[in-house]
Amino acid sequence: MNDLGIDDLPIRDELRGKSPYGAPQLDVPVRLNTNENPYPLPEPLVERIAERVRDAARELNRYPDRDAVELRTELARYLTRTGGHPVARENVWAANGSNEVIQQLLQTFAGPGRIAMGFEPSYSMHGLISRGTGTGWISGPRGDDFTLDAAAARAAIAEHRPDVVFITSPNNPTGTAVDAGTVLALYEAAQAAKPSLVVVDEAYVEFSHRPSLLPLIEGRPNLVISRTMSKAFGAAGLRLGYLAAHPAVVDAVQLVRLPYHLSAVTQATALAALEHTDTLLGYVEQLKSERDRLVAELRAIGYEVTESDANFVQFGRFADAHAVWQQILDRGVLVRDNGVPGWLRVTAGTPEENDAFLDAVRALKKEHSS
Amino acid sequence: MNDLGIDDLPIRDELRGKSPYGAPQLDVPVRLNTNENPYPLPEPLVERIAERVRDAARELNRYPDRDAVELRTELARYLTRTGGHPVARENVWAANGSNEVIQQLLQTFAGPGRIAMGFEPSYSMHGLISRGTGTGWISGPRGDDFTLDAAAARAAIAEHRPDVVFITSPNNPTGTAVDAGTVLALYEAAQAAKPSLVVVDEAYVEFSHRPSLLPLIEGRPNLVISRTMSKAFGAAGLRLGYLAAHPAVVDAVQLVRLPYHLSAVTQATALAALEHTDTLLGYVEQLKSERDRLVAELRAIGYEVTESDANFVQFGRFADAHAVWQQILDRGVLVRDNGVPGWLRVTAGTPEENDAFLDAVRALKKEHSS
Repeated sequence: MNDLGIDDLPIRDELRGKSPYGAPQLDVPVRLNTNENPYPLPEPLVERIAERVRDAARELNRYPDRDAVELRTELARYLTRTGGHPVARENVWAANGSNEVIQQLLQTFAGPGRIAMGFEPSYSMHGLISRGTGTGWISGPRGDDFTLDAAAARAAIAEHRPDVVFITSPNNPTGTAVDAGTVLALYEAAQAAKPSLVVVDEAYVEFSHRPSLLPLIEGRPNLVISRTMSKAFGAAGLRLGYLAAHPAVVDAVQLVRLPYHLSAVTQATALAALEHTDTLLGYVEQLKSERDRLVAELRAIGYEVTESDANFVQFGRFADAHAVWQQILDRGVLVRDNGVPGWLRVTAGTPEENDAFLDAVRALKKEHSS
Repeated sequence: MNDLGIDDLPIRDELRGKSPYGAPQLDVPVRLNTNENPYPLPEPLVERIAERVRDAARELNRYPDRDAVELRTELARYLTRTGGHPVARENVWAANGSNEVIQQLLQTFAGPGRIAMGFEPSYSMHGLISRGTGTGWISGPRGDDFTLDAAAARAAIAEHRPDVVFITSPNNPTGTAVDAGTVLALYEAAQAAKPSLVVVDEAYVEFSHRPSLLPLIEGRPNLVISRTMSKAFGAAGLRLGYLAAHPAVVDAVQLVRLPYHLSAVTQATALAALEHTDTLLGYVEQLKSERDRLVAELRAIGYEVTESDANFVQFGRFADAHAVWQQILDRGVLVRDNGVPGWLRVTAGTPEENDAFLDAVRALKKEHSS
């Protein structure tokens, strides 16, 4: 009995031999591997969360607001203020992390007998959640500099006629952003192939040099912007993802969402964080300048660096990226090997954490040159 | 644009014309429709939740413990203490409500090309989540008294050879429990048909006259017990479901779980509630005696009542159950019409709420007899 394993159970055939997704959670002094925001929430916000959750806990015997009306209203207010386009509560939907938002979109618009496409390397959960929802997955092309080549991408869409297209901007793990013209070209190609949903994943958009693509939802009911509070709001532990789209999309995902999917404590905590938006966006400015410093210093040391609009930087090139990942880890700094041959990814941390990282890679460079 | 509806979007064909699941959330003085626990959490627990969440909020910029080790350890301790069988953290998995637990099980053990079976009327989400995961759904038989007829159920399993079998005990919305012998007979039938997963949904087991079926997992790697903190722990707003099974099942669902699915605030709140288990189980005792009072008084009034092992009671029979539902609502009491012809379901509330309900149905009975 005790040596029984997963493959002895009647699991789905395509899951056999697979391992769970997830970055190694190692106990290392400097962790720059999961694109977390290094700044803890400010103490007044911590207190406000405790206060809001205390209130929510007094009614915890009741199911939460199934439609998260107050939270969606405040998310719409935030998007209206920062996204360059007015949106209302009816345009917004929220779930347990953008992963659950994506899962709900795939259950509604893709699933068995349908296919989704992304342009890889990109956020690997797009493909994994596609597979988890029985959706076929097509890996579309990306240029050598990791930007989206509009012509090649359009050709791939015309060939494969996907039901859902993912465009990640800024892209993870490369850091590259996509301009509005490219998104529009891909949207039109996707609609021409068949009416299909285009999901622009803007998890890192607050760190970008470019404005949000949110205004593109106007007049385009099959275009969805996906967001998260994990990064800019410094709340990876909260698991709060959301989307903005035509109200019909918001209605549609409610056909598949698990009822009462968003707990009362999650809603209360997210509402508290939204009250402190200005402070949190201040940290974003600090991180943007640290990100720019990482890019400049890595180049000065002699590394190749991909242009970054995110809170992380892709650097290389390495004959054996995983060996370098281990060498950096041996110096007490955990970065991420996303499996992109020749490249590694480092999250912008605090100035001290970034210094520790830069010291480690500077020392490595010297070793290798000597 | 503004009059665009769900069916104008490229959603899956089988979702066309569907409506989202969910009981009406009406503003009524006495709400006895969603099997919530009527007792708010005690104030010391509310304070403990605020305290634990405050601590969690100080690290909210980091992803939560992906494996929820502390929470699963405490859930295992609770099950060991109350379930008649020792279980360890490795036997336990937790997610956002038992709905997400069930979804993960179906993604792992069912999905496209596979089928699940339940014995209806039962918890309707079993069928809905099956459909949402691309799993075929077979509605198995139940006796006229809403108990499970082991012979008929075994025959249905042999005929349809389902990949996943749901047994709900106590059953919702009928309130009926299933004995261990019947579960074992169905488990054996399911294994004989093909190796398949049997999920015993014990969401309401703390209210039962019978002990938990937890000990049955011993030596049966394809048997899963599903639980929730929504009912006995008075925490419907928390959305914390969990399962107990062989460790290989716990490993297997990690192949499909969304990474970091369980937020740090959810884990902190659940841990606080588990510290107050004794107080909360005291409320369960009160609710059990109120449930028994509802059964007795409804029968005394002249209604038919199904035997109940849950925190709710199914009563009838009515030529037009929905009309009676409306008449009770007109008297300020919201009960549930689950669509079982001739029957309605009332949740055991506080003594005052139950009195209001009994007054309403007593008055109705008099009207109809006069």
